[in-house]
Amino acid sequence: MPKVCIFSAAEYCVHQMKPLVEKWPESVCVPAACSPSTAALAKGCDVVCLFVNDCCDKEVVEVFKASGVKMVAMRCAGFDRVDVPALAEAGIQIARVPAYSPYAVAEHAVTLALSLNRKIHKAYIRVREGNFTLSGLVGFDMHEKTVGIVSTGKIGTIAAQCFKGFGMKVLGYDMYPNDHFKEIGEYVTMDELLARADVISLHTPLMPATHHMINKEVIAKMKDGVILINCSRGGLVDTHALVDGLLEGKIGGAGLDVYEDEDKLFFQNFVSLDTKDRMERWDKTFAMLRSLPNVIITPHTAFLTKEALENICSTTIQNIEEFLEGKALTNGVKV
Amino acid sequence: MPKVCIFSAAEYCVHQMKPLVEKWPESVCVPAACSPSTAALAKGCDVVCLFVNDCCDKEVVEVFKASGVKMVAMRCAGFDRVDVPALAEAGIQIARVPAYSPYAVAEHAVTLALSLNRKIHKAYIRVREGNFTLSGLVGFDMHEKTVGIVSTGKIGTIAAQCFKGFGMKVLGYDMYPNDHFKEIGEYVTMDELLARADVISLHTPLMPATHHMINKEVIAKMKDGVILINCSRGGLVDTHALVDGLLEGKIGGAGLDVYEDEDKLFFQNFVSLDTKDRMERWDKTFAMLRSLPNVIITPHTAFLTKEALENICSTTIQNIEEFLEGKALTNGVKV
Amino acid sequence: MPKVCIFSAAEYCVHQMKPLVEKWPESVCVPAACSPSTAALAKGCDVVCLFVNDCCDKEVVEVFKASGVKMVAMRCAGFDRVDVPALAEAGIQIARVPAYSPYAVAEHAVTLALSLNRKIHKAYIRVREGNFTLSGLVGFDMHEKTVGIVSTGKIGTIAAQCFKGFGMKVLGYDMYPNDHFKEIGEYVTMDELLARADVISLHTPLMPATHHMINKEVIAKMKDGVILINCSRGGLVDTHALVDGLLEGKIGGAGLDVYEDEDKLFFQNFVSLDTKDRMERWDKTFAMLRSLPNVIITPHTAFLTKEALENICSTTIQNIEEFLEGKALTNGVKV
Amino acid sequence: MPKVCIFSAAEYCVHQMKPLVEKWPESVCVPAACSPSTAALAKGCDVVCLFVNDCCDKEVVEVFKASGVKMVAMRCAGFDRVDVPALAEAGIQIARVPAYSPYAVAEHAVTLALSLNRKIHKAYIRVREGNFTLSGLVGFDMHEKTVGIVSTGKIGTIAAQCFKGFGMKVLGYDMYPNDHFKEIGEYVTMDELLARADVISLHTPLMPATHHMINKEVIAKMKDGVILINCSRGGLVDTHALVDGLLEGKIGGAGLDVYEDEDKLFFQNFVSLDTKDRMERWDKTFAMLRSLPNVIITPHTAFLTKEALENICSTTIQNIEEFLEGKALTNGVKV
Repeated sequence: MPKVCIFSAAEYCVHQMKPLVEKWPESVCVPAACSPSTAALAKGCDVVCLFVNDCCDKEVVEVFKASGVKMVAMRCAGFDRVDVPALAEAGIQIARVPAYSPYAVAEHAVTLALSLNRKIHKAYIRVREGNFTLSGLVGFDMHEKTVGIVSTGKIGTIAAQCFKGFGMKVLGYDMYPNDHFKEIGEYVTMDELLARADVISLHTPLMPATHHMINKEVIAKMKDGVILINCSRGGLVDTHALVDGLLEGKIGGAGLDVYEDEDKLFFQNFVSLDTKDRMERWDKTFAMLRSLPNVIITPHTAFLTKEALENICSTTIQNIEEFLEGKALTNGVKV
Repeated sequence: MPKVCIFSAAEYCVHQMKPLVEKWPESVCVPAACSPSTAALAKGCDVVCLFVNDCCDKEVVEVFKASGVKMVAMRCAGFDRVDVPALAEAGIQIARVPAYSPYAVAEHAVTLALSLNRKIHKAYIRVREGNFTLSGLVGFDMHEKTVGIVSTGKIGTIAAQCFKGFGMKVLGYDMYPNDHFKEIGEYVTMDELLARADVISLHTPLMPATHHMINKEVIAKMKDGVILINCSRGGLVDTHALVDGLLEGKIGGAGLDVYEDEDKLFFQNFVSLDTKDRMERWDKTFAMLRSLPNVIITPHTAFLTKEALENICSTTIQNIEEFLEGKALTNGVKV
Repeated sequence: MPKVCIFSAAEYCVHQMKPLVEKWPESVCVPAACSPSTAALAKGCDVVCLFVNDCCDKEVVEVFKASGVKMVAMRCAGFDRVDVPALAEAGIQIARVPAYSPYAVAEHAVTLALSLNRKIHKAYIRVREGNFTLSGLVGFDMHEKTVGIVSTGKIGTIAAQCFKGFGMKVLGYDMYPNDHFKEIGEYVTMDELLARADVISLHTPLMPATHHMINKEVIAKMKDGVILINCSRGGLVDTHALVDGLLEGKIGGAGLDVYEDEDKLFFQNFVSLDTKDRMERWDKTFAMLRSLPNVIITPHTAFLTKEALENICSTTIQNIEEFLEGKALTNGVKV
Repeated sequence: MPKVCIFSAAEYCVHQMKPLVEKWPESVCVPAACSPSTAALAKGCDVVCLFVNDCCDKEVVEVFKASGVKMVAMRCAGFDRVDVPALAEAGIQIARVPAYSPYAVAEHAVTLALSLNRKIHKAYIRVREGNFTLSGLVGFDMHEKTVGIVSTGKIGTIAAQCFKGFGMKVLGYDMYPNDHFKEIGEYVTMDELLARADVISLHTPLMPATHHMINKEVIAKMKDGVILINCSRGGLVDTHALVDGLLEGKIGGAGLDVYEDEDKLFFQNFVSLDTKDRMERWDKTFAMLRSLPNVIITPHTAFLTKEALENICSTTIQNIEEFLEGKALTNGVKV
């Protein structure tokens, strides 16, 4: 009977991984993130299950090896914080979940655009306080407006389809156009997209070439009052340029599920900290961005649907079973 | 040069009616709602411009007559609070704006459903406080879920189209089916709609027959965890039954732009009142409803888009021009 | 080297108990509350350290016994949820911390009264949203008003002293008057206190005779607009009568650090729950109370000062040392 | 029968000035602030009643003169925005209300210190959201701590008395020591006060010599974790240095009823503005300050008590009566 040690096991995760724990009942859920100081909690476990922000560097790998760990099962697609060669050297295998639900992410992008437009976040607070007036809550009809989809992969194309349902004109930009998107929208140059779109949604992977692709110059080319959505990767956007664009009124609203330096913030709860500890980790840029009434930030929840979580759990179980049966790992990560 | 007296002229309205005021510069904007005690502010004005909750009862009509008012130009569709026969007797004409933007309302219904599902209202507050964890924010994929559109008129059909863009199965119920909707979704009985829909959106007009159409029995027929949206009229829903349905977990979330007794609350700002005055007007049922974390209430803002406001203003100008030129009123209200 | 197992070890508690953990470094902090399903985490520990809401019933005691636990060190005064005879039978000793800081509690009562009066909770939200107007924020001068202290023990007397510093007239009611209070205020009958006090602060212990001492009849005797503070025990106040008194405008504001049914709510974080789980535990009375703009509820934080926490930790260490040295327990709990 | 035109007549002010309006029923309440574009609303009024932020510059004075205004009755102490020589030249008299309630202001300073310490602003939001945990809410005992009162005039001395009631050690600094304060606390040098105080409360008038008296160097001399209160004038504090002090954890909390550039913000409601208009008036420094969890800002409400408002109204009536009876103005303002 294998034992799986699940790190970063917040409430939702305990719920999500129930099928795994029921299958292998000696598994343990550790609320703490994996780090050199917590890795030893995996002692006696065959498999360690990690999430996107868990640390699995050389030091952790050594602790894992000494603790008898034989496999790392990532319950996410990304493995930026995993030292893959160190794992290989230690003879520890690794697999991941390559995709969960492209619908979850695309729908979240649309949700952010709509919520910003109709000011749901502000209406909620106003109604709660007892202010039932209308001034300051005016939005616009999405119908007949133009949306620009930057990168038309699986997620971008689904987002395009959602926006099209509102009767919007759909523009797309991608280095590699695909036929599916062509049925929904029109490919244009990036400059044309920027010039014409009332709503821009980013779905580009982060690479050296796409880092800060939304910067001062690019923002200057956008339409006044544009709504910008980023449910892809924080590094696509130069946050300082974004804040400036918002303060100048160039950008009418920003819906962000990601942030350049989110690894120091997201998935953590700062509310419980003493003021002094909290100030030490204070991010001024993030505070400025968050202070703006026309910015909605969600803490990397675009993927967070029941369907995605179930998919992650079942794929993780399957990955572990392959390992236990000594098969080649379908979703293994190569050095 | 005619003078128009615009009552209930909140900030957004002053902005909205700018074209009218620029056309007839002697017009005045009165922030107060029209009532027997404020009606005299129209003294010397030819036309009075009212909004949906302004009072225009017999007493007000008499003040208008004595003040020299010749026309009431409603800047909305509804005229429940207008004593039309009294106006006729006083020789005061009345016109209204029959429609503004069906897109605005339909899109708001979709926005509420999405925001509830992805918990944007709660994520916003959590991020602001510094809680970046995920537990409690799990939604579901809209894709392949089922939406039920109750009443498939212009607005309902547009909402259907929006939901369909998400890859949802669309069901409709209406006493008078229409071909346009049939291209988008499938007509079913009300009971089948209730049994199958994951999201239900109401677009029925309020009539004696539809009053409390969503009641205890009807809610019992819904799917567990259904999201209920009402951007139509508050009276369609028995609020007590709704609260019970939410407390029992039967209803997973409610997005409401209207409320049975909204005329005592909406468009007003209670924040500025002394506690004593506020308590006198406290609505316990509304407070209970509002207290639930899975309820989003917007203060009758479904119509509130730039396009709708512009449409209202231009139609109002046109209504007044017809009156000034002595023409028959295209949008006149008959006794 | 003894091992202490600290249950309910939230962040603040880990910080608080650092001196204990540094003294006995093999001690462990368990974030979970103690219950029959978590008690086994104490396996191999000599001492278990519990907080006020940890369960230590017969079932838990048996697990403790089987796990080798020899002592229960309560890090609080109360031990309502401890089965003391069962511990005795199992040969497990128990000690507690009889008092922490009466100043902390008394100062919290004054803080709640002042915050309510000057509407700090509402001003904070208004300023954050961008509403800098004054209407709705009017308070009153504390100076020359009258405060009524119900029960003039150590905490009540300190609260009296604080209020007196504001130039308030101080009234007190207690079955057992003391000389210290007489130097600060005037003893009157309960009825006279109710009739004259602008602010009433409860400092009575909960006993059968004091249960619901603040009820419909008693509230009717209070001055219109009175501010009521309860930092003692939730059961002193009939919550339904309190809500009615607030809705009628009889009570001008309520500052509560305790609630009748707080054991089902306090010290827990419902934000992380799924909606369905949350609804199952929803407390309608609490929701109604919390919805009122003139009510401030703090989650049993009146005791929560640095000084109190330090005192609790050092007394707990001392209790454990006495046990280790085989001495009679100064703060032992008798069957 | 004189007519008084009351500018900036928000809800609370309409309530406050009821005795004046009942005395002289032809008086009018104008919600708008006085400015060159609104001054003409005073046409036909003998007296204009202004509040602290109403503009009464040369241009306004000319409109007043042309409108028949004979007296300006300030319903506040300050008259920074009044062109007194222009009024004199126009033959318009002016009176003010020299003092309202020193208790109101002193008590507000204490309220801010206590609320910050016990984190009432955060507890309120946490409880409302359903987070009833304790971590992050730890305060300290005020008892036996040290408070430093900067400037020991009437208000500072009352604040000292309030703090002393908590059993605090009271230090004072003032160029002109007074005997009343000596009975309460101990005069020390400013440097000693900064070095010893756990709570510092500013009660200094704003003058060229006191501008930015709290700056980088002064903050460096404070105790770690000090709570700083300013209910006096915004210009006393260099806001950038304050923000830095908070971010470094040097200052543990700041309670502010005033802000350097408050005249562009306070008494206004930005919530009703369109995003674009709002961004034009966005104050980045204020946004950064407000974003910090250990800062409570109230919008100049320290004076705002029932007693102060009544005092202001009765003194204003008396000022106007003296004017009407042709007497010398007891509270007249000299050129």
